[in-house]
This record gives sequence, C-alpha cells and structure tokens, in this order.
Amino acid sequence: MAKIELDPMLARDCLILGELKFSRLLLMNNALVPWFILLPHTDKTEIIDLPESEQASLLKEINLLSAFVRENFKISKLNIAAIGNIVSQLHVHVVGRDPSDYCWPNVVWGQSEGEPYALEQVKNIRAALAQQLGEAFSRAPE
Amino acid sequence: MAKIELDPMLARDCLILGELKFSRLLLMNNALVPWFILLPHTDKTEIIDLPESEQASLLKEINLLSAFVRENFKISKLNIAAIGNIVSQLHVHVVGRDPSDYCWPNVVWGQSEGEPYALEQVKNIRAALAQQLGEAFSRAPE
Repeated sequence: MAKIELDPMLARDCLILGELKFSRLLLMNNALVPWFILLPHTDKTEIIDLPESEQASLLKEINLLSAFVRENFKISKLNIAAIGNIVSQLHVHVVGRDPSDYCWPNVVWGQSEGEPYALEQVKNIRAALAQQLGEAFSRAPE
Repeated sequence: MAKIELDPMLARDCLILGELKFSRLLLMNNALVPWFILLPHTDKTEIIDLPESEQASLLKEINLLSAFVRENFKISKLNIAAIGNIVSQLHVHVVGRDPSDYCWPNVVWGQSEGEPYALEQVKNIRAALAQQLGEAFSRAPE
C-alpha cells in the first residue's frame, strides 16, 4: 500500500485516532459534532481511480465507521463525503449530524465555528473504537 | 426495488435525466457547475442501511457517473457526497469542480447563486449520457 504522508492542513485540524486496515482514521478537532475522516493508503485523489478491491475496502470502512458514529453519538443523519477541493489528498468525511447540532441543517464544510476536544474525550473515543471495531482498529499512542 | 416518489424539493430544483439500473439520474438545474444526483430505488435514507448488493450497485453508478462528468466537462476535482440533512430521501451528489467555477473551493451545498440550464444544454447532456453509458442509461422523455 502507498505510504501516507499526512497533508499539513489535515495534520493541523485533525487528531490521529489510529489505523484501520486500509485507512488511517482521523478525528476533526471540533467537539461540536462527531466528525471522522478516513484517509485511505493511496496516492490517488479520486475514488474512481482506486482499483475495485480498494474501493471495496474503503466502502467497508465507511460502513464500519458509520455504524460506530450512529451507535456512539446522538445523531439522526450521517453525512458521507469525498470533497478534496482544498486538501487534494483523498479523504472521506463521515459526520454524524443532528437537528440539535451547531450548524444543522447546513453542511459542516466551510463553517468557521469549532471547539477543540479535551484529551479525555479523545481517549474515550479511541477506547470505544477499540472496543467496537476490535482487531479492525489499531489505536494510535495517546 | 422500492418505487421512487421524488421528494418535492428535488423535483423543484432538479431535472430528470433518466434512469440507471439502480438509480434515477437527476441534474441540478444550475448550469454554473456540472452537478448530478443519483436517486437510488430504495426507501432507506442511509447508505449503511442498504444491503451489500445495493451498495455495490450504487458504487458502480457513482463510478459510471464520475467517469462521465470527468470526460464531458472541464473539471479538475470530483465531489461525491451523501448528505440529506434537508432532503432525507437517499441521494448521492456527483459534482464536477474546477478552480474556475463559481464557488471554488467552497462546497456547492448552501450556495444561493445559480443559473438554470437552456433546454438545448439538457438535451445535449442526455444525448452524451446515452452515448457514453449505452444500455446502462434509459433517457427520460425530452
């Protein structure tokens, strides 16, 4: 698999949660909404350019993460998106949304508001991922 | 397959281009950017709730449409998204983006600007789809 050099903007805005089989798992450092990012091990920038097997791996991880978000946060809608207009490195957003959240029903992209996580919250999210995903998830060092 | 009753907001904002095997194909009536929408034949509102075979069908149509957009419009990035905060009926956006377009690098969702298509343009898009997708696409009546 292609080695992932984390884009500097993602490195600035996100926390590294750990590794799935095909993707690195990031958390947008904005506690106002559960906003996860899959960073597949590829140098392609479009889903369409991934070989079929890698598309299947990515879809599987979108499903895993979607289930995790729905079961662990109070949300009523999932937003799944590959955009990449600003950061071209392929990454897929999996965001849990709810009418009670800070920018509903608008999309999260382009909103300037945000609130960094406390360390304890991130630790709890990593632990919940490890419990729910089992061996599919390798936790990053705290 | 579940029958599709087109959501009134999608019906107002979009043109029906035709039918793929699993999804109805819509065109956002905004000629400022090539913005297509896949409306899968399902009553589920989340991709995660589709059976695996339907997820595979949807992914196949996202690929077909992505290739079509990239080959027929001057774009440099694809934006693929399932959002549904406002219209819950499951629909997937496939949008071709370029640094020269009207709202780059911002996302198209939530932008108020727009410009309706001329009938001739829509006719040309339907013809190009029919040519490129062959029997995978059934053209809607003009």
